[in-house]
Amino acid sequence: MPTKKKNIATGGHAKDKWQYSCMIPEPSLRRLPWYLSYAKLLQADGHTRVSSTQIAQGIGVDSSLVAKDLSYVNLNGRTRVGYETAEMVQVLDTFLGFTEEHRAFLFGVGNLGAALLEDRGLQQFGLQIVAGFDVAPGLVGTCIGDIPIYHVDTLKEQMEQHPDVHIGILTVPIQTAQETTDWLVECGIHAIWNFTPYRIAVPEGVVVQNTSLYAHLALIFNRMRCDRLMHD
Amino acid sequence: MPTKKKNIATGGHAKDKWQYSCMIPEPSLRRLPWYLSYAKLLQADGHTRVSSTQIAQGIGVDSSLVAKDLSYVNLNGRTRVGYETAEMVQVLDTFLGFTEEHRAFLFGVGNLGAALLEDRGLQQFGLQIVAGFDVAPGLVGTCIGDIPIYHVDTLKEQMEQHPDVHIGILTVPIQTAQETTDWLVECGIHAIWNFTPYRIAVPEGVVVQNTSLYAHLALIFNRMRCDRLMHD
Repeated sequence: MPTKKKNIATGGHAKDKWQYSCMIPEPSLRRLPWYLSYAKLLQADGHTRVSSTQIAQGIGVDSSLVAKDLSYVNLNGRTRVGYETAEMVQVLDTFLGFTEEHRAFLFGVGNLGAALLEDRGLQQFGLQIVAGFDVAPGLVGTCIGDIPIYHVDTLKEQMEQHPDVHIGILTVPIQTAQETTDWLVECGIHAIWNFTPYRIAVPEGVVVQNTSLYAHLALIFNRMRCDRLMHD
Repeated sequence: MPTKKKNIATGGHAKDKWQYSCMIPEPSLRRLPWYLSYAKLLQADGHTRVSSTQIAQGIGVDSSLVAKDLSYVNLNGRTRVGYETAEMVQVLDTFLGFTEEHRAFLFGVGNLGAALLEDRGLQQFGLQIVAGFDVAPGLVGTCIGDIPIYHVDTLKEQMEQHPDVHIGILTVPIQTAQETTDWLVECGIHAIWNFTPYRIAVPEGVVVQNTSLYAHLALIFNRMRCDRLMHD
């Protein structure tokens, strides 16, 4: 559809803008939250404008890359004026999905799972955890931070009661990571935020985001060891 | 130094093995925790051996890549026998630093900070949080999960009392992320695990690992939106 393509490239109406957004390269998408934080900081400090050079210096990214990344979300700086910080905050906040409410279920109320249930910070970024699921008799039927814990066998019923829940947060032990994933997908979960260090397999069309704290820890430990060796 | 290089390439004594380890490409290093989880799972299920093909199928990585990644840590599968799962668990656990105790201070006892203080799971992967730091009068002097909270101004004294602490976990608001980082580095912290979405600047030689949950959330939201559009 050439007309659609043209719309996408030049901006076009709302839906085309979203389609355009899907074409952002992942490295650029990963940098957008940095620009958002920086713009929020400037805005809080009373700065109404910022140049790509300032952003580049502030966060340690090449300024041509900054301009390119921001152009993907239709933010274009004006010569000798730069970007409006308020507009940048609003556009990036919206684009990144932080202004919408996304509802999620959490699976595995162990150490990390319970910690995430108590972390109210996620709400500010558009994620509302509606319920937790576990199998432990001592947990099922209780609440953590006002969030009820159900038995994982009742997931289908809970999905029917909460048809707006599409995200599953996976904080189960590695032994049950795949089995739980299969069950989540069967019950209709579209996206899985996988905090386990286990690499889960999902059918095509299911979104998986791996956030293994342990893998990141290993990176820190390794770099520290290498630094020590270099200075020995 | 050609002799050293030779030692590194062929195995050599302990120190050379560690130096060798620093030469692992980061993508391989990032995959090692997946192999570890998979091997742990097999071991728990009573499997004593595993082939690279099995690992490849189990975690969705090409089998030649598996063999290459594992060869970096001197794990070499034997023809028609494969790898010993127990050896793989032991070697990877040690290599990734999970068997050592690394001690850390945590900065910013807000939602996420408090959650991490309560998360005992990190201990199993070699990270022991010794103390939390904040500025809020209501927090300073209290404990969370048996971990004491001190005022951030007392960091220098605490560093003297805990000379084995090298890692700082950063969970402060973005407004104070850079300022806190500067203070940490001044007080002698070598590595910063940055959970803020702010891109902190550090002097050369200081290790930074960014783990922004919000950036990962944005990736999920974006992919879900793209999937919705593709199916509209």
